[in-house]
Amino acid sequence: MLLESLRAAFSGRLLTGADAAPFLTDFRGKWTGQALAVAQPDNAEEVARVVAWCHAHRVPVVPQGGNTGLSGGSVPNMAPTLGTGVSSLPPEGANPALGRPGGGVAQPQSLPVVLSLTRLNRIRAIDPLNNTLVAEAGVTLLQVQEAAKNAGRLFPLSLAAEGSCTIGGNLATNAGGVQVLRYGNARELCLGLEVVTAEGELWNGLRTLRKDNTGYDLRDLYIGSEGTLGVITAAALKLFPLPAAQVVALVAVPSPQQALDLLTLAQARLGAGLTAFEILSDTCMDLVLQHIPGTRRPLAEASPWYVLLELSATTDEAQAAQAMEGLLEAAMESEWVTDAALSTSLAQFEALWALRENISEAQGAEGKTIKHDIALPISRIPEFVARADAAIASAFPEVRLVVFGHLGDGNLHYNVSPPAQQAGLDSSAGRTGPEHAAAFVALEGPLSRLVHDAVHAFDGSISAEHGLGVLRRDESARYKSPLELQLMRRIKQALDPLGLMNPGKLLKFESNRPFPHTLSAQAAIN
Amino acid sequence: MLLESLRAAFSGRLLTGADAAPFLTDFRGKWTGQALAVAQPDNAEEVARVVAWCHAHRVPVVPQGGNTGLSGGSVPNMAPTLGTGVSSLPPEGANPALGRPGGGVAQPQSLPVVLSLTRLNRIRAIDPLNNTLVAEAGVTLLQVQEAAKNAGRLFPLSLAAEGSCTIGGNLATNAGGVQVLRYGNARELCLGLEVVTAEGELWNGLRTLRKDNTGYDLRDLYIGSEGTLGVITAAALKLFPLPAAQVVALVAVPSPQQALDLLTLAQARLGAGLTAFEILSDTCMDLVLQHIPGTRRPLAEASPWYVLLELSATTDEAQAAQAMEGLLEAAMESEWVTDAALSTSLAQFEALWALRENISEAQGAEGKTIKHDIALPISRIPEFVARADAAIASAFPEVRLVVFGHLGDGNLHYNVSPPAQQAGLDSSAGRTGPEHAAAFVALEGPLSRLVHDAVHAFDGSISAEHGLGVLRRDESARYKSPLELQLMRRIKQALDPLGLMNPGKLLKFESNRPFPHTLSAQAAIN
Repeated sequence: MLLESLRAAFSGRLLTGADAAPFLTDFRGKWTGQALAVAQPDNAEEVARVVAWCHAHRVPVVPQGGNTGLSGGSVPNMAPTLGTGVSSLPPEGANPALGRPGGGVAQPQSLPVVLSLTRLNRIRAIDPLNNTLVAEAGVTLLQVQEAAKNAGRLFPLSLAAEGSCTIGGNLATNAGGVQVLRYGNARELCLGLEVVTAEGELWNGLRTLRKDNTGYDLRDLYIGSEGTLGVITAAALKLFPLPAAQVVALVAVPSPQQALDLLTLAQARLGAGLTAFEILSDTCMDLVLQHIPGTRRPLAEASPWYVLLELSATTDEAQAAQAMEGLLEAAMESEWVTDAALSTSLAQFEALWALRENISEAQGAEGKTIKHDIALPISRIPEFVARADAAIASAFPEVRLVVFGHLGDGNLHYNVSPPAQQAGLDSSAGRTGPEHAAAFVALEGPLSRLVHDAVHAFDGSISAEHGLGVLRRDESARYKSPLELQLMRRIKQALDPLGLMNPGKLLKFESNRPFPHTLSAQAAIN
Repeated sequence: MLLESLRAAFSGRLLTGADAAPFLTDFRGKWTGQALAVAQPDNAEEVARVVAWCHAHRVPVVPQGGNTGLSGGSVPNMAPTLGTGVSSLPPEGANPALGRPGGGVAQPQSLPVVLSLTRLNRIRAIDPLNNTLVAEAGVTLLQVQEAAKNAGRLFPLSLAAEGSCTIGGNLATNAGGVQVLRYGNARELCLGLEVVTAEGELWNGLRTLRKDNTGYDLRDLYIGSEGTLGVITAAALKLFPLPAAQVVALVAVPSPQQALDLLTLAQARLGAGLTAFEILSDTCMDLVLQHIPGTRRPLAEASPWYVLLELSATTDEAQAAQAMEGLLEAAMESEWVTDAALSTSLAQFEALWALRENISEAQGAEGKTIKHDIALPISRIPEFVARADAAIASAFPEVRLVVFGHLGDGNLHYNVSPPAQQAGLDSSAGRTGPEHAAAFVALEGPLSRLVHDAVHAFDGSISAEHGLGVLRRDESARYKSPLELQLMRRIKQALDPLGLMNPGKLLKFESNRPFPHTLSAQAAIN
């Protein structure tokens, strides 16, 4: 019996039945899968043991961090890919659930093991003089931020789920967030990795170096691979000096064009001091004011669009405020900014940020949401928004656009909600009726196709920071060249020849390696 | 005849004989190889045609940019690796020079084609609002910098060879330089690539996006792979606002420990305004003053060590100077800095930089140089320098250490010269006698072993920014885990199964794919 074999190989926590259930559904409840068990190792060596067991028994592995992903990458897939090829016998003791269709390669069809990394939760080292921190995969993003702060340093990755998402998951999906403009994505914040390979071997690539040109960049291959090539068990991260002062402004702009003009001016005047540049439409502002208690409109009059920009200074509050005021005066003279509110206290700083950070929650309060996480060349955003808005208004006149995002990175959350009136006469109810909800959900396919076709026509990306998972896997393949997909499959074949790592996510893949393969593959590779 | 076949497949410039000679030796004259011919295509499609021909005829390919590399990566290798395996027939029209030892795989033993990319020299696009520039591989680094500047933007990669090195070579080797502290290596300055694969197919990955999480990071795999996986033909690069003002200071520090203290303070006070932080020993200063005309000592008294630090400001000269003065006053109070000279004009700015930038040339004027391009955790540099200096003084009392580098990145050029007296009584002659030179060169093996063993013991890298090429290939393998080497070979096998791309560089590799392989490999991968 497989489970007993796993229990014999791994003495740590193994959850089944009701205990396993929370690990089999993503936090939004969009995807639910099944698993042989949920393994919760305590350290990297135990992770290696579990993965080695899975490899030996041809059992798929689904690595999971905080399970906060938006693309379904961290829960078992409902429909694992099946392969065809040459028939061969499975190794002794192999998975009895393994299908062996006539003439087909024995592909993994067993239920997977979900590998929960949350108990790998130690900060292994902090070196403030080197500006580095080594954290295990299961440390939450917030814990990493706090450990850095306690050492007088900044770890700048910041996003909505930071209290529960893990650094391993952040790296596996190359997470973004609100400070990417200045500090980069998760990828740019990582100097080294520890990884368990698909064969269950432990690779120590935990370098804390700013420069190292000694071979292929394995680190960046595992980053963003969504657990389909191996399991990140620890990471060496970059730290930065803590800013001495921060000021945020919420300003009204007539359209995305003026927001872009303001961005260019802000980059020239503030340089790397510009640590966030977010855009939101009036619809977003209204939703937040309506649904999030304690928020209030910071400007006297409504505007079609707003920008929230943050300045982090190495000097002091006064100089920061002066620099921000100088920028906004110049922008108002150019009529790019029509009104502005600046934070002069921490409470105001947080209140202004709350208007941006609560948009997703406020949108969720009005029913189902169709989300798009797109990136575009920044210079083309005004034209994209104008064209895509018009195309949607024409093809889907009944929906409401809820557009916001990280304009400084060219990343828009180009979201869609049902029309406001569907929320009923009592708008505080904030829910659509079931028949309206079903009609709205039915729009998702054609509406997303329209948006993503437009993104592609503008040389953009259909997944800026959320990854592909199962949600965007096939759509992404639609826009990629056959050559790029082939190169990706070659990488997958090279590092996970059996196709056991997080199968069905990121890329459609059929292993061409018949079982049993291990000895011949090793001989070929060594 | 192979050459005629190539001529028929490729109508562009093809150099042989004396015309080809300059492409077969690196600029320092350390490595010389042979080639079937040097091909100089005019565009990416022609590159693809040449590589496809090489692939079809099992002819190795040596991609070359400005041929300014320091590790021998850009010229043909004298001793190509030979493989063993199952015998098979070469495809029709294949390389007649191909060896087919009994029972051995027909490995490429033909002379390679050197693929010179210098005629791919167009800037394809500049988008100042998106802060991106698309350049072909053969554009020199200086031309990229100038094109950016003409558009009011900064391309910050900067290194000694910038007048002749190419952006394709910079990316293939992940070049570093003096601004990495603020802007990162070549890797971090690249958003997208166009690459000709080992099979001669053209991959368009020229994205100009800040965020794109749609699959495996092929871009970063090709970057730093030294032409062993494919040929970079164009790149989409990041631009930045031009700084409004810059000030540089040359300061005296008692030892690397105080330099590190100053670095930490400078990072806290100047943040991203700190755009360079270089260290040099008194020996370096003396060499420059002695050999480089027009240089003069900027400080009244000599000091064991100096730091050159640069501040780039978004405001104006006055504020920049004030910030730098404030920093240095604080550092002097702490007795980390004993004396300082600040630039107050462009001429002074350049004169101070010249003291740092001419060290390599000055060192070269005193005869042979043993170079080490090492990276360490920054916090460990003082201890490393103390220990390594002592070990060398003990084991090699006759040599002179010439230590300088990018302290802000933890990257030291931990170089070694013959003793001063070997330069003869007339020190202006600046040359050692041939017998002394030979004795010095004989030290290279054991001395580099000592240095690199120490680097490894301090968790450092033996190639920070120069790559591996042939110079460091085997030494690097000595310090890497067998697992990491195996993973690298799997990547090589996946993307260049025949081992035709820049053979012998970066990694020892023997293809396990018998000829003819093409159809079966394609069938397996698609």
